[in-house]
Amino acid sequence: MAEPKRLLFNAFSMNCVSHIHHGLWGRAETRQLDYTSLDAWTELAQILEAGCFDALFLADVVGVYDNYKGGPETSIREAMQIPVNDPTLLIPAMAQVTEHLGFAFTGSILADHPFNFARRVSTLDHLTRGRVAWNIVTSYLPSAARNLGYADLPRHDDRYDRGDDYLDVLYKLWEASWEDDAVVADAERGIYAEPSKVHAIDHHGPYYQVPGPHLCEPSPQRTPVLFQAGSSDRGREFAARHAECMFVAGSSRAVGRIRADVHRRAIAYGRQPSDIKIFQGITPVVGGTEAEAKAKAEELRAEASVEGGLAHMSGNIGADLGTIDPERPIADVDFNRVTGIIKNLAETAPDRAWTFGDLARRQMTGQFLVGSPEQVADRLEKLAEAGADGFNLIYTSTPGTFVDFIDVVVPILCQRGLMQRDYRPGTLREKLFGHPRLSERHPGSAVRQR
Amino acid sequence: MAEPKRLLFNAFSMNCVSHIHHGLWGRAETRQLDYTSLDAWTELAQILEAGCFDALFLADVVGVYDNYKGGPETSIREAMQIPVNDPTLLIPAMAQVTEHLGFAFTGSILADHPFNFARRVSTLDHLTRGRVAWNIVTSYLPSAARNLGYADLPRHDDRYDRGDDYLDVLYKLWEASWEDDAVVADAERGIYAEPSKVHAIDHHGPYYQVPGPHLCEPSPQRTPVLFQAGSSDRGREFAARHAECMFVAGSSRAVGRIRADVHRRAIAYGRQPSDIKIFQGITPVVGGTEAEAKAKAEELRAEASVEGGLAHMSGNIGADLGTIDPERPIADVDFNRVTGIIKNLAETAPDRAWTFGDLARRQMTGQFLVGSPEQVADRLEKLAEAGADGFNLIYTSTPGTFVDFIDVVVPILCQRGLMQRDYRPGTLREKLFGHPRLSERHPGSAVRQR
Repeated sequence: MAEPKRLLFNAFSMNCVSHIHHGLWGRAETRQLDYTSLDAWTELAQILEAGCFDALFLADVVGVYDNYKGGPETSIREAMQIPVNDPTLLIPAMAQVTEHLGFAFTGSILADHPFNFARRVSTLDHLTRGRVAWNIVTSYLPSAARNLGYADLPRHDDRYDRGDDYLDVLYKLWEASWEDDAVVADAERGIYAEPSKVHAIDHHGPYYQVPGPHLCEPSPQRTPVLFQAGSSDRGREFAARHAECMFVAGSSRAVGRIRADVHRRAIAYGRQPSDIKIFQGITPVVGGTEAEAKAKAEELRAEASVEGGLAHMSGNIGADLGTIDPERPIADVDFNRVTGIIKNLAETAPDRAWTFGDLARRQMTGQFLVGSPEQVADRLEKLAEAGADGFNLIYTSTPGTFVDFIDVVVPILCQRGLMQRDYRPGTLREKLFGHPRLSERHPGSAVRQR
Repeated sequence: MAEPKRLLFNAFSMNCVSHIHHGLWGRAETRQLDYTSLDAWTELAQILEAGCFDALFLADVVGVYDNYKGGPETSIREAMQIPVNDPTLLIPAMAQVTEHLGFAFTGSILADHPFNFARRVSTLDHLTRGRVAWNIVTSYLPSAARNLGYADLPRHDDRYDRGDDYLDVLYKLWEASWEDDAVVADAERGIYAEPSKVHAIDHHGPYYQVPGPHLCEPSPQRTPVLFQAGSSDRGREFAARHAECMFVAGSSRAVGRIRADVHRRAIAYGRQPSDIKIFQGITPVVGGTEAEAKAKAEELRAEASVEGGLAHMSGNIGADLGTIDPERPIADVDFNRVTGIIKNLAETAPDRAWTFGDLARRQMTGQFLVGSPEQVADRLEKLAEAGADGFNLIYTSTPGTFVDFIDVVVPILCQRGLMQRDYRPGTLREKLFGHPRLSERHPGSAVRQR
């Protein structure tokens, strides 16, 4: 009998009040209102580490969802990803109280210049002793681009072209600028680093001109573990080249399809399918029994904010769901950016005529995975068979969702050999892939000094 | 008898191996090599808070000192501010283990877009419960500008013009975008914030176009305490408008002159002299007796790296001291950027014919304040009479320099009523100035909603 596949688990959160399931922040059992409190975050990190989670995955946006009903009002009222604070600044405090937990944060290539971003990430990788992952995004909110000095959101494919150049700068700074033995810290001779082993990078790309050298000495991982989440055609091409982990929101059919496509494309870059792990987003709603879980899910569905969900989905698809008839079939409309979401949705029930109303309801509660602890574990096992290597667990209450999962589902997963009982040693990449630094097959390693 | 003036004390450090006094990182008593360790920084923060220091002041550069002998080699060999990690990421971990200590960090207006920077600082102010200060710099290293996407370092006065626009964006985001009562967090009605009280800023300046709104709800201080350190003519004008605290490196004569000039200019902006506090940089070298202190200073001077000092000074003045005859009088040369440093230096001994060699030696050890605990306290009292409101203490070993100072000098200062024995309540600004937010007289408060 084959060894069961160890599944990976991230807690999915965001430095804001309401992340995915809106309208629930006022419930007594959630600490969402404490998002500015270091204590709430260090407590969460300690819970996750006690539960042997692989990482805390922090989403982010650098703009406002402001197209629903023509403005940001609904988002502001619902605390729907606004206010939203910087995710990176939570990591050092959480790292201080943990030893193994990884920290994945989302950062847009539009927000920081790569020279400065490279330093920030190297600093995090040093301070966490190699436990940092970066979820590469290219922004989809026009508000982000306009506030960051772009006349408007660059076109979708242009953003990915810029992303390729951005990553090329980063690889050179992280992998090539300082040789492994550049730092000698020889107090006798008064030499901290050998100047001949610290190199300018002289990057001249289509978007960025960066002479270097990198301002930081090599951190434990050099390049952080790279996540990517875009599932458009260009996004999958980008993932095939750069990503080590991919986050997919959608049905198991969509996950399987994206997985197969990204693996196929990765081979064209000289990589192997096992070089890219797929994380599926799910919201566990666990009860002592199936009936309890169903009642809990019903209660959450009843309290969830339809308005919050519509504002969120409107921003995601770049179309105002406040002006579109909810009964209108989605197949009827050709939104450039809707494609991926619609495809994923449609694949969960290919024969059904999906409407925009379905889309909004789906956004709010569609990812619920409801059941007894055994049922939830069974379902995760099935999703893994369909293609998921791991999961981003979405909360309906924090840290409650994670506490419940750890208390009742994790023991079953461990018993079945589907989840680690203890951490492997080393950096986050070593824990996930068995090697501390970027694989030799990864295009980012091609710039290394030989 | 007048109440003695309470003096302010910051520890001056940097997220790097060698900050000001170079060549000393290999000594047994210093933790400079532990700059990537969170433990070293949280230990330092706890020491400073036990000693009732006002703040830890973190310097920064986002480039390399690469003009000495025509290249960065000396800086790299000496660890002279390279490697240099991001300072802001140290703050959350230190905030987690302290309650009152302030955290001032240096940030260049060339490094981050103001929309993104505003969010990062608001996040820090939330997480620290209002203990953050920002030292506004405009960068002086051409390497910084070239790596950050500027063809070359913008001219000195242009950088300050850009700085004015940058600050205008920040004031609008921090002070005007969210009204005080915008956040209601009313779970019953499902309203987190009142959309009518969250405003776009619609900034159209000469350098920045930022529609807003700010992504963060108001933090305890809104605008962080503002430090500034440039003492050129344009720099003093900038300080007079924006700064609440000013850091001056130089003789007490220079400090007095800059203080008087900045206070005079501040009045033209509707501010009062007491609105701007002057911090003088000094390096305490304390011994049990004067003789012990002198011996310690001699030992440090003998071990200090002349090369490191020359590379540092070359970057500061924008001229390669490796190619200039050290015997050449400084009065002889008209470097645009040398002016302030030379003036400050020359004023310590106006009749002396200073040379470039003097300048370099001065850079390394000139700020030593050597003596028994009583003598050091006497000297600080004198410097305060000459114009300093407080001090940035420069280390020769960390945390050793601060530990020594706290152990033997602080008790004397407290006894004389020159230093606080306990913290005042409230935000950092409240502790320093008695009010939690920007003064009504500060130009930044003019944008507030009335």
